[in-house]
Amino acid sequence: MMEINILNQDLKKKYNKYFQQYGSVLFINKNNIIYNSTIISSKSKKSKIFPVIKANAYGMGVIAITNILIELGYKSIFLANIAEGVEVRKKFKSLNIYILNCGQPLNAQILIKHNLIPVLNSVEDIKSWVCGNLNNESCVIHLDTGMNRLGLSYSNILDLKKTKYINKLKIKFLMTHLASAENAKKKFNEIQLNKLQKYTKIISKIKNHSIKSSICNSSGIWLGEKYLLNIVRPGASFLGINPLLNKQNPLKETVSMYAQITQIRKALKNTSVGYGQTVKLKKDSLLATISIGYSNGLSRLLSNKGSVYINNKKLDILGRVSMDLTVIDISKFNDRELKIGDIVEIFGPNKSLEKFAIENNTIPYEILCNIDKNIPKIIV
Amino acid sequence: MMEINILNQDLKKKYNKYFQQYGSVLFINKNNIIYNSTIISSKSKKSKIFPVIKANAYGMGVIAITNILIELGYKSIFLANIAEGVEVRKKFKSLNIYILNCGQPLNAQILIKHNLIPVLNSVEDIKSWVCGNLNNESCVIHLDTGMNRLGLSYSNILDLKKTKYINKLKIKFLMTHLASAENAKKKFNEIQLNKLQKYTKIISKIKNHSIKSSICNSSGIWLGEKYLLNIVRPGASFLGINPLLNKQNPLKETVSMYAQITQIRKALKNTSVGYGQTVKLKKDSLLATISIGYSNGLSRLLSNKGSVYINNKKLDILGRVSMDLTVIDISKFNDRELKIGDIVEIFGPNKSLEKFAIENNTIPYEILCNIDKNIPKIIV
Repeated sequence: MMEINILNQDLKKKYNKYFQQYGSVLFINKNNIIYNSTIISSKSKKSKIFPVIKANAYGMGVIAITNILIELGYKSIFLANIAEGVEVRKKFKSLNIYILNCGQPLNAQILIKHNLIPVLNSVEDIKSWVCGNLNNESCVIHLDTGMNRLGLSYSNILDLKKTKYINKLKIKFLMTHLASAENAKKKFNEIQLNKLQKYTKIISKIKNHSIKSSICNSSGIWLGEKYLLNIVRPGASFLGINPLLNKQNPLKETVSMYAQITQIRKALKNTSVGYGQTVKLKKDSLLATISIGYSNGLSRLLSNKGSVYINNKKLDILGRVSMDLTVIDISKFNDRELKIGDIVEIFGPNKSLEKFAIENNTIPYEILCNIDKNIPKIIV
Repeated sequence: MMEINILNQDLKKKYNKYFQQYGSVLFINKNNIIYNSTIISSKSKKSKIFPVIKANAYGMGVIAITNILIELGYKSIFLANIAEGVEVRKKFKSLNIYILNCGQPLNAQILIKHNLIPVLNSVEDIKSWVCGNLNNESCVIHLDTGMNRLGLSYSNILDLKKTKYINKLKIKFLMTHLASAENAKKKFNEIQLNKLQKYTKIISKIKNHSIKSSICNSSGIWLGEKYLLNIVRPGASFLGINPLLNKQNPLKETVSMYAQITQIRKALKNTSVGYGQTVKLKKDSLLATISIGYSNGLSRLLSNKGSVYINNKKLDILGRVSMDLTVIDISKFNDRELKIGDIVEIFGPNKSLEKFAIENNTIPYEILCNIDKNIPKIIV
């Protein structure tokens, strides 16, 4: 499945100025995004697909990713907050932009000004929206079915009937969010689906017409057809992040990260490496200093235990990862096999993002979101 | 020492639009930077101070921080790479900008074009610089005295005599980097100082004139006067990051971070919270969802164990931290004490950045560098 080994010699030459100037570089494989989009489409059957590309498209650059999605035919996206909405609206005039968290107190004017569609998460949101939304623009209502995070509770929904607000809402659809969608064995998924369907019936009855609904994030799409409903909201699956827990990834990973060798040195037995002298060399060693550190996405957690790849060989990180530099042991290579400027794989063909995230004691989402915004992200 | 409790009611009102639109906000206390600068100046005696503000000024915004430093009279700064140098040069024409890692192969033309002063880390760097630097611009030479990371080794230095390159270098000063400066008890500091002094003598003799030198990072300045030499290179100490290991911070922390309450809900005993249902409520609880998550600087490591503050009360994080939302237990407050839109302290007056970093199993530097570049950073 791994087809992101894009750094052949020609590409190294082509992109070397980025390595020179920034130290580390991220590649985004557009063909794999297209592949993932095809899989997502096929799994989603007749449901509409509204990609979620919040947090700067998981750190990958929301403008670049939106461009690709529009090219693929998508017309609606979800973003996290108004700041993201305003940024994307500047570039894309006709895209439908849904805002998951409109901020407090909800400001209907700014949403309408930038033509952003709010997801209303609470009774307070609904009140603010109805009072400020004089042109009767549409909205989405978020219902809580078990996350205990955002959305109207069951009692909030029952109370809706008593208020005048519900009549003034033009609801595009209802949505909820699955807590454990990556694990198909969890009964909780079905409990959440049943609640959403029950709540949808109640609200449809109040409004006196049938209302659409949505429950699937990326993983939800793999739970089976009955979960698809009217709209699905995949996000990280476009980037090929595995939607399934402990199962083979049906998608293609899309992102790979590289740095370059800044310096090579012979270091003597018993000398130490890096801050705090946390490692002492057991033998004379060949070391390389590479141009990436914790400010660029290589966490300090990997100090003295992470690894990187050069020419498909696994090489250990020695000492503490510093802010923009890391030392690795290249004694596996002989004296003149490697040279400064050679490319180092942080994750990519030899180590999946999924595996890299496990080494970092986290999930791929957090890895991507923490990659320095300054690092060039090159779509290849 | 903690004087960053800047979020009084007036300021909350003033900055509320940032919370509405971005969810979380970072405040940088300029008076504390000025205070820290005064302490650094006083400790540095007659040495020149060249601030190091790489990695986008440790995530705080290099342009804003450079403006403050210039106002304080600083004329020279260190940055990590050429990309940073080019960005800063655009705004600041007369600043002396030193580049710590010029990339491979070293490109003298681009350095000269943007009037950037290179730190040459290796024999290869020296060769490339001499060959490309036709106008005989100045440089800095980095010597390795024990980090095994960047810089010329002792044998490289001895070899310099044999080459023609050394005669063509106009050396501003020599520098090395301390491995354990935060710990004054480590003998290794003195070993490194002695090596630098020995190497400086050798190179001064080759060049036939005395050459200046520099060894101190922030912590080094607290090691005693003999370490100060000609130039010191403090960085994070301007932001008040403690330069001393396990000792009281002589500086004032400068950065504080806040989010807002997005929603408040009563949640029933035995219901779960967040992704993966990792926590089950032991009793009926009052929960708040706050507008910050791991994409904004609140790490997933804090899932089910971190805490935040509202009105100076410590409140536990419940369940997994998600990408841009986190749920906290506010049962300590009664039903109507808190409301949506209320401000939540992530770190600040009630929890130092230093303590927050320990909870995150890292150091303050990594916390700051990982704070989303999109989050508004407001200088107050």
